[in-house]
Amino acid sequence: MQSSFPQKLQALWQTRQTYICVGLDPDLSKIPKHLLKEKNSVFEFNKNLIEATSDLVCSYKPQMAYYSGQRLEDQLHMTMDFLKSFCPEIPVILDSKRGDIGSTAEQYAKEAFEVYGADAVTVNPYMGLETVEPFLSYADKGVFVLCKTSNPGSGEFQNLQVAGGKRLFEIVAQSIHDKSKVHSGLGLVVGATHVEDIKSVRALASQVPFLIPGVGAQGGSVHEVVKSARSPDGHGLLINSSRGIIYASADKDYAAAARKATIQLKNEIALALES
Amino acid sequence: MQSSFPQKLQALWQTRQTYICVGLDPDLSKIPKHLLKEKNSVFEFNKNLIEATSDLVCSYKPQMAYYSGQRLEDQLHMTMDFLKSFCPEIPVILDSKRGDIGSTAEQYAKEAFEVYGADAVTVNPYMGLETVEPFLSYADKGVFVLCKTSNPGSGEFQNLQVAGGKRLFEIVAQSIHDKSKVHSGLGLVVGATHVEDIKSVRALASQVPFLIPGVGAQGGSVHEVVKSARSPDGHGLLINSSRGIIYASADKDYAAAARKATIQLKNEIALALES
Repeated sequence: MQSSFPQKLQALWQTRQTYICVGLDPDLSKIPKHLLKEKNSVFEFNKNLIEATSDLVCSYKPQMAYYSGQRLEDQLHMTMDFLKSFCPEIPVILDSKRGDIGSTAEQYAKEAFEVYGADAVTVNPYMGLETVEPFLSYADKGVFVLCKTSNPGSGEFQNLQVAGGKRLFEIVAQSIHDKSKVHSGLGLVVGATHVEDIKSVRALASQVPFLIPGVGAQGGSVHEVVKSARSPDGHGLLINSSRGIIYASADKDYAAAARKATIQLKNEIALALES
Repeated sequence: MQSSFPQKLQALWQTRQTYICVGLDPDLSKIPKHLLKEKNSVFEFNKNLIEATSDLVCSYKPQMAYYSGQRLEDQLHMTMDFLKSFCPEIPVILDSKRGDIGSTAEQYAKEAFEVYGADAVTVNPYMGLETVEPFLSYADKGVFVLCKTSNPGSGEFQNLQVAGGKRLFEIVAQSIHDKSKVHSGLGLVVGATHVEDIKSVRALASQVPFLIPGVGAQGGSVHEVVKSARSPDGHGLLINSSRGIIYASADKDYAAAARKATIQLKNEIALALES
């Protein structure tokens, strides 16, 4: 039997002690120039990055926008197929932040889990948690709900204090915590750039895995993030790095440079976990 | 010079007195069976619907999920190309409800406006209004921001009362109203199923166009919606109908049936506007 998303994640956390999620966000204007001569330059880029890092990570996260915005859906398919054959033990999160309802949300669940064969997906909760239901009907899959995001303006609506004193993102965190007792595939997206908010979310959702963007280029501190975000059992973390790893070098040595950057991040995380 | 989205909309509102947006949400399990023999059955379905209704509507709205969820992006491209040649005066809203930030949101703006050539798009505000900026940098385009959606559970987060007494969706409405003074392409998505909330949003955002899903299958009353949602100049409405029009018949007469249903809705709207 195939492992579920939470099982795959637990296995990698425990056996490999890795909490790194590599974001596969290939921008044609940023990938090494020599790849542009290739027929499938973005797939080649991804493939070499995956081969160079797969023993170090607990997840890959292709950012859907970079594929559909550049009309490269076919190369996302090739990347997903490659991941499934090269490192089937590593769960893949399709970062598409879809948010819709009813039969439309069912189509988005099909997009993520059937069309692309992802193990997990990111979902936007604005329309209410019925948004999440069609994704949860795939029992083995993971669903990371946006809670407190890493962007500078994330507080505009997420930090609004509602009746009862909690802020909107805390209400979302509480709701997902409650729902996670029935659905083990639920997680939260919590940005590395707001450490105090990570603490608040962890206090409300003790065991839920956090997908954490915002270290590196966006400025979040790995040490602070790990201390604030890990769950009581010492796991519960997927620390995402995209630009810091995939663009570690803009030259032919990009895959080796990506490996080096991943090892460095792994060491930083290990140090923080020990301290 | 090509007309902008708001200009196209104003022209149709004034010259044709039509406020109908037809949702092109083709589900392979629901379209007439005889079309399944065609090579591009979804495109044929859309094309015949467009030919049968284009003199009666102020917009078409393809729902992205039905294309990406069924791996039919190519037939969405064919549909967009057909719309541009057959009825270039009618603006097309790509209903994709994307919501992301920075360079990722830029990719989603490219997806909507460059890859698919849409005139407008729907956007989810949960991550803050910086989500909307990359779309607004296309000056001629329209951006409908989710405000109060039509689903039964939309109130779960949208209705939370925040400090100051307003509800979350009212805060979103106020922000978009403020921003619309600089960006004429901004609009709001307000569901037909919550008439009192439509009134509140119209009170906060007097001139912003409302994209209104939820009449017909979801149960919203056309009469109530028109009375509550129209702007002081008597326009400002895009009343969306998907299932009520595109599945008016499940047989070979589906295009004629769609035309009949559209005329009926147009008459209902006209009656409400006069009363």
